[in-house]
Amino acid sequence: MNFPSKLIENAVEELAKLPGVGRKTALRLALHLLKEETEETFSLAEALVKMRTDVKHCKTCHNISDTEICDICSNPLRDKSVLCVVSDIRDVIAIENTSQYKGLYHVLGGVISPIEGIGPSDLHIDSLLERLPASEVREILLAISPTMEGDTTGFYLTRKLRDFDLRITTIARGVPVGGELEYTDEITLGRSIVERTAYGKV
Amino acid sequence: MNFPSKLIENAVEELAKLPGVGRKTALRLALHLLKEETEETFSLAEALVKMRTDVKHCKTCHNISDTEICDICSNPLRDKSVLCVVSDIRDVIAIENTSQYKGLYHVLGGVISPIEGIGPSDLHIDSLLERLPASEVREILLAISPTMEGDTTGFYLTRKLRDFDLRITTIARGVPVGGELEYTDEITLGRSIVERTAYGKV
Repeated sequence: MNFPSKLIENAVEELAKLPGVGRKTALRLALHLLKEETEETFSLAEALVKMRTDVKHCKTCHNISDTEICDICSNPLRDKSVLCVVSDIRDVIAIENTSQYKGLYHVLGGVISPIEGIGPSDLHIDSLLERLPASEVREILLAISPTMEGDTTGFYLTRKLRDFDLRITTIARGVPVGGELEYTDEITLGRSIVERTAYGKV
Repeated sequence: MNFPSKLIENAVEELAKLPGVGRKTALRLALHLLKEETEETFSLAEALVKMRTDVKHCKTCHNISDTEICDICSNPLRDKSVLCVVSDIRDVIAIENTSQYKGLYHVLGGVISPIEGIGPSDLHIDSLLERLPASEVREILLAISPTMEGDTTGFYLTRKLRDFDLRITTIARGVPVGGELEYTDEITLGRSIVERTAYGKV
């Protein structure tokens, strides 16, 4: 692509490094910023730099936070007997948005994936095992995506957690709310029958 | 959406102002930047700010440029007898990428659109009429998208250009290269027959 300006070319190249942004989209974003007030670009750039420089990771659960210990870990109203283990920060946000969970979290920072060269030592598993003895945790809720890598990680964790006196649970598999039986895959539909619950329970 | 950090929330809100970027995409971009080196975010922010502050518009053709007069207008090798009128800077980039056009440009900065409140005075039409008398231009090539607004703009321009001794042309309408006759709409296919050219001409 030929650009009429080196400055635009630089901006497009930087934007195109973002995931899911190709050069055409990057050009559209750059031209949009050129049309808007200068102030818009300044506040975008400032917000990104400020975030990258100042965001911390919670020392206890590895969630992102503005403070050393995150708002969830330091909240006295949270149920300290349940600990939800997730792979990513986005999972914490997704679960928090349901308003159905009041316990604590532990963010692994990924899943075990031999293909990508990610082993247990690359994840925050040691710090999970370290925080358990001094904690009030009685239940570990594994909320890891049901993929090959996710299931491997779950299996590894249950073995590591065997020595602790804990109830280990996982999120229910079943037909999504609003989903059609007809279009649900066999494994999911099968599990939704095996793990059937009393009608009208929720 | 609940965010675990005010800094991330700010960054997401700023990113979500970009066209085609929703809050979920914005969060994905923000978390991507958090995973990458700090340097990445810095160079993105710097490129955007530098572009927004320093990019100029060519005084002659209104194309974006790093200088007062753009590289195309100041290039002695360009054919100064043809002037291509386009609505947007992106059209200049698209035409330049074909390597089939060696003339000059004039960027209108939009098309006439009564619904969006854009009239002829909001476009760079006056400056087009002003640059013509002192120029060597013999042909005006209208390369405006064949929409309702584009055709209105073309019609308006041809009336304004009547008093000049100019050949007025427009880009050919026809079946796209690689396109299937069967799936081409009737108007396009009809025009491709009316405006048929000698076989093997290009």
